[in-house]
Amino acid sequence: MKNYIADRFQNLSGSVLRRFAEEAAKRNLLAFTNGNPAPETFEIEELARLASECLLTDRDKVLRYNMALGFPPLREALKERLAKKFGIDFERNDLVITSGGTQGIDLICKIFLNGSESVVVEQPSYGSCFNIYRGYGKKLLGVPIREDGLDLTELEKTLKANQDVKIIYTIPTFANPTGFTATMEKRQALYAMAQKYDVLILEDDPYSELRYKGEPTKPIKSFDSDGRVFYVGSLSKIIAPAFRLGFTVFDKAYTPQFNIAKQMTDTHSNLLAQYIAQKYLTGSDFEKHISFCQETYRHKSQLMIKLLKEKLHPSIKMSSPEGGLYVMLFLPNDYDGLKFVEKGMDSGVACIPGCAFMLDPDKSTNSVRLCYSCVSDEQIKKGVEIIGKVSHEIFD
Amino acid sequence: MKNYIADRFQNLSGSVLRRFAEEAAKRNLLAFTNGNPAPETFEIEELARLASECLLTDRDKVLRYNMALGFPPLREALKERLAKKFGIDFERNDLVITSGGTQGIDLICKIFLNGSESVVVEQPSYGSCFNIYRGYGKKLLGVPIREDGLDLTELEKTLKANQDVKIIYTIPTFANPTGFTATMEKRQALYAMAQKYDVLILEDDPYSELRYKGEPTKPIKSFDSDGRVFYVGSLSKIIAPAFRLGFTVFDKAYTPQFNIAKQMTDTHSNLLAQYIAQKYLTGSDFEKHISFCQETYRHKSQLMIKLLKEKLHPSIKMSSPEGGLYVMLFLPNDYDGLKFVEKGMDSGVACIPGCAFMLDPDKSTNSVRLCYSCVSDEQIKKGVEIIGKVSHEIFD
Repeated sequence: MKNYIADRFQNLSGSVLRRFAEEAAKRNLLAFTNGNPAPETFEIEELARLASECLLTDRDKVLRYNMALGFPPLREALKERLAKKFGIDFERNDLVITSGGTQGIDLICKIFLNGSESVVVEQPSYGSCFNIYRGYGKKLLGVPIREDGLDLTELEKTLKANQDVKIIYTIPTFANPTGFTATMEKRQALYAMAQKYDVLILEDDPYSELRYKGEPTKPIKSFDSDGRVFYVGSLSKIIAPAFRLGFTVFDKAYTPQFNIAKQMTDTHSNLLAQYIAQKYLTGSDFEKHISFCQETYRHKSQLMIKLLKEKLHPSIKMSSPEGGLYVMLFLPNDYDGLKFVEKGMDSGVACIPGCAFMLDPDKSTNSVRLCYSCVSDEQIKKGVEIIGKVSHEIFD
Repeated sequence: MKNYIADRFQNLSGSVLRRFAEEAAKRNLLAFTNGNPAPETFEIEELARLASECLLTDRDKVLRYNMALGFPPLREALKERLAKKFGIDFERNDLVITSGGTQGIDLICKIFLNGSESVVVEQPSYGSCFNIYRGYGKKLLGVPIREDGLDLTELEKTLKANQDVKIIYTIPTFANPTGFTATMEKRQALYAMAQKYDVLILEDDPYSELRYKGEPTKPIKSFDSDGRVFYVGSLSKIIAPAFRLGFTVFDKAYTPQFNIAKQMTDTHSNLLAQYIAQKYLTGSDFEKHISFCQETYRHKSQLMIKLLKEKLHPSIKMSSPEGGLYVMLFLPNDYDGLKFVEKGMDSGVACIPGCAFMLDPDKSTNSVRLCYSCVSDEQIKKGVEIIGKVSHEIFD
């Protein structure tokens, strides 16, 4: 067959993360691989009740076409929450409901990114979104992330050397895969640099609601004075990923573009899920639900980190997340994370090597991501025990 | 603010169709505008029951992430139905679940259409998808549609004059807006021409299940011997549009590309809706439901067409649909359809002028689309009475 595939698609390959998760499933391993929310945080009975209620009360309205920008009461509920909790100003901003956070990134690229322009991503970063940028832009440029946020010296070097950068992609809070959170000073300095080099910021924030420790830091969007920040949020971690609901906040000047982009992408997001989400978010028990989610992850992360400190070879360092789903190990002497993961898998436990989050996954990194969200206490104990042994076999 | 918007997006404007529907709603007019399925065909109680059942039986599985290509049992159910009912061969083809038919078109463009390549569309055609092609390709070229399908003489002229055509977009069955259906001879001749000029065919088929009269004609995909046809289907008209579920059939060679494209667009479609759809499609009453849908549209179309023949000025011609949601009027002496629609709106009835389905909506056309699907018998009687009067005022 002749090759009909578009240029942008010629060199895209599937998610490296998924490959490890799939291998773990195939080999039936104890898996710290999946960045999925804890299933015990899904309020199944309540969601089933709401699904019925929405359909039987609002009848065919729930089943018809609706607005491209999203079900108006859900948009209002989210605006209110984001204003109150994260200080985002909806006098100057607007919001579109998307089919998961992923689609928010896709829509932003569709509207703003030319084929001649580049995107800066943190290294390591959420690898599954690299393809979105590759599908629209010229190239991806990596800048290292530190415990307190992006390395701004490296960022400035990159921006100076690459006049074609249009977007900086950052996960400032409980970053995937490191669990790092940028300080307010770093956020402000990053914003100032975006102004200086006149680039846009795509602030991906799927985890802020899952802070279980420490003081919250406001999103960059909260002090965006000239509309260059696009804030991508998700309901996947606080309601359920299968609903595929997220939202993107943007300067009101771009409402017509997001409206058209959403129309031409999938008309609008699933309306039953939007109805359910609106009732759920504005229900009297939602704050209790959020507290339960936070408590769940606090408990799991504390257990895992305590055990890691006990069991791992002391030369291994790790991140100290205050929320989110991940902790990252840093192996000594630049030991290859992939080799470590392979040894772990041979002993029955799967993790994701840091290389899966790098622009070049073939390059060795000394890091390993562990996800504590969808494993039980027993699994955490058993899994960390095994990883501990592996680490001592290697580094003793 | 500086103009950060990508080139592809600079000249896109919102759906012209939507503007008329919105104006009808604002002025509270009797509306033949909306191409929505009849709300009485939504089985609300059954869908509410299934929503509850799926959540309470399959528990957190329904709420987790799932496969990018779609919920496997739903994919199987659709393959079986498409093989049996439309003769599509799933030995050589595969299927992805999309977020509505619209997303199928978006994914095909994402995978196959370069910025240097053009797309042929029927004239008139479903205007809301023009923006999708404009967002990926070089230009859109119009070829007139006739009562028995695309005008192949004009198509060949266009293909000869434009070596950059990559895709021909066609709605061969109960086309929007005309209601025309291409004969099997025309389908085969179109396929032969696509082979001769080595272009792909995007076969959009949201209405085939809604045939209420005459003999079915198999889709082009059913005799596609070299994998150049992409078949886009939808569950919007036979379950509910708000679920945003559709599917795209493609040659198995492209499974990896559709898998990646779906991952990088919205990860996967809403899973609760996929669970419900699978149970609904494979339930014992689904054929009865389809018959009910067909009967509903048969009744509405017959009533509308009978009354149009009685009330309209005899110089107005109209299409004779055998299924779908639309009938189209053709006004004599190239009378401007927009002017006709405006007069209708001033008398209390809204329709869509043919120009809304043209590449250049500012150019006058003599046609008007009437949608009979979501109006009652009473509304059809009252609305046609008014349009009839308007027609006599103009053409007597």
